[in-house]
Amino acid sequence: MRREKFEYYRDGLLAGDRNVLSKSISIIESQSEEDHQLAMRILSSLPAQESIRIGISGAPGVGKSTFIEAFGQTLIEDKHKLAVLAIDPSSPFGGGSILGDKTRMSELSRLKDVYIRPSASLNHVGGTGAKTYQTMLLCEAAGFDRIIIETVGVGQTEAVARQMVDFFLLLAQPASGDELQGIKKGIMEHVDGIVVNKADNNLIKEAKRTQMELREALHYLSTEESPKVLTCSSTEGAGMKEIKEWILDFCGERKENGGFAQRRKEQSEAVLVGLMQNSLMKFISSQQPVKDQQSLKLNELKANKLNLIQALDQFERWLQNQSLSD
Amino acid sequence: MRREKFEYYRDGLLAGDRNVLSKSISIIESQSEEDHQLAMRILSSLPAQESIRIGISGAPGVGKSTFIEAFGQTLIEDKHKLAVLAIDPSSPFGGGSILGDKTRMSELSRLKDVYIRPSASLNHVGGTGAKTYQTMLLCEAAGFDRIIIETVGVGQTEAVARQMVDFFLLLAQPASGDELQGIKKGIMEHVDGIVVNKADNNLIKEAKRTQMELREALHYLSTEESPKVLTCSSTEGAGMKEIKEWILDFCGERKENGGFAQRRKEQSEAVLVGLMQNSLMKFISSQQPVKDQQSLKLNELKANKLNLIQALDQFERWLQNQSLSD
Repeated sequence: MRREKFEYYRDGLLAGDRNVLSKSISIIESQSEEDHQLAMRILSSLPAQESIRIGISGAPGVGKSTFIEAFGQTLIEDKHKLAVLAIDPSSPFGGGSILGDKTRMSELSRLKDVYIRPSASLNHVGGTGAKTYQTMLLCEAAGFDRIIIETVGVGQTEAVARQMVDFFLLLAQPASGDELQGIKKGIMEHVDGIVVNKADNNLIKEAKRTQMELREALHYLSTEESPKVLTCSSTEGAGMKEIKEWILDFCGERKENGGFAQRRKEQSEAVLVGLMQNSLMKFISSQQPVKDQQSLKLNELKANKLNLIQALDQFERWLQNQSLSD
Repeated sequence: MRREKFEYYRDGLLAGDRNVLSKSISIIESQSEEDHQLAMRILSSLPAQESIRIGISGAPGVGKSTFIEAFGQTLIEDKHKLAVLAIDPSSPFGGGSILGDKTRMSELSRLKDVYIRPSASLNHVGGTGAKTYQTMLLCEAAGFDRIIIETVGVGQTEAVARQMVDFFLLLAQPASGDELQGIKKGIMEHVDGIVVNKADNNLIKEAKRTQMELREALHYLSTEESPKVLTCSSTEGAGMKEIKEWILDFCGERKENGGFAQRRKEQSEAVLVGLMQNSLMKFISSQQPVKDQQSLKLNELKANKLNLIQALDQFERWLQNQSLSD
């Protein structure tokens, strides 16, 4: 990809040019030092924008794409613009993306006020959250004032998503026993709300029962006010308006009492800590003596001169004798 | 926990003492520098042991625990000893462990020749694979010559598990359409074999059909010999013996043609690279000037003197003027 001058990106972003937005995201995602410098310059130049950031999580199969397809269309009413980003726990094996399917959300992706970036964080070792956060800032600069961060409801990606949104929504489906146990465990204390999807046709009753059970569980778990539990049908569209109003009310209240700004502030501090760690890793890995020592130990392992633990031990002893200076 | 002398751990491990094994694993998992030194000494002292390492992956709900409960009992026939370790993509939020449920595999866990460590890697940032690998070495030293590494079939943990086993098994369930699509994508080229679970009662037909479809897909995807696809019933025990023989034959053949040793060698090289990266991160983060600079920038962000990107930019500029010396 050809790199344009800094002004091209800044001006294009502020004019809401989707093409420039996509190119800017590629620069953010690039591993080259030159691109990194350009990315920093672009990001520094962007004024902060008003937006609502919504995280949507849920186990595979719960219907996240279908939900976002329906919910997204509700979100862009009243002239809003929506960007959908995914935090994708892709395996380092090629092509193993879980969320990155371009054929998903086909209706939504055709709308001009919607920008979908299927897998913003593919293969960014250590930088998953940081890259997505910066991508989000670019989208906001380009006028997308409603952001959805989608993530698979498993493990670390969820925590990363939670750390960058104003409202974190867990999508569940009609369930019982073991499955419900899984939903309750760990996550429920950290969501702002739960929606039980698939409340349609023959599952309505079960969805309502799941809603009840989750409400009860939340009531016992929560020390403060418990998060709400709603139901919806993504295929029939039922419940979408209520969910939108609920989230907007939630954010509105928090804006008034200062909680909204406070949460964003804490988030940006956490992101800075993560970004500085990335920088440190890049710095130390690029030091020639480190590279030399790594190769040496790896070669000694390959040649069977040392075993794994001996090689590591010697590397650590060497490292202990190094120090940082300016 | 009180720390004993080095000899206590080495001798206890070599005598197959389960209690010492558990304590040794805690030392591996500890974050303290003193424990790290002790861990290195213990690990260095252990002779390599013959073993078969089996990775078992599969989406949540596919029946991994039930499968391991049945398959594990088959594995310990003929006087073998089995250790089951889990690579758990736990969220950093407290308690959100997916695999760490102690009530699982209740029959297996009661057997004296079985050692189950539910979540060996809980909260080890960056070190997931490395800690599990070292735990595996401890188990082998304690005489456990059959190792199962269990992982949720989502994202990076799977790749980490793949990187430390001799045979990587994907567990699937009777499925169709979308689900099958998900199984095919990405992962199938990287497994040594697939087992379709739940081939019992009213699902036998569907299991067989899924087996056929997966075989066909693998045939098209694979450039070399395609991995086998079998079926089993974890609840009825059907298929367990065949799966065991298949895996042992696979490893036996590879031992003869050198592939077994070659794979282990490549794995230990990859683990060394990962462990050295962990050491680097620990080293650079512990340097006083780095800590000071991190605090400074974080405080300037907190005080609204800098925004996130400015703070990062200044931190990186400072870092650029540092260098390593001995």
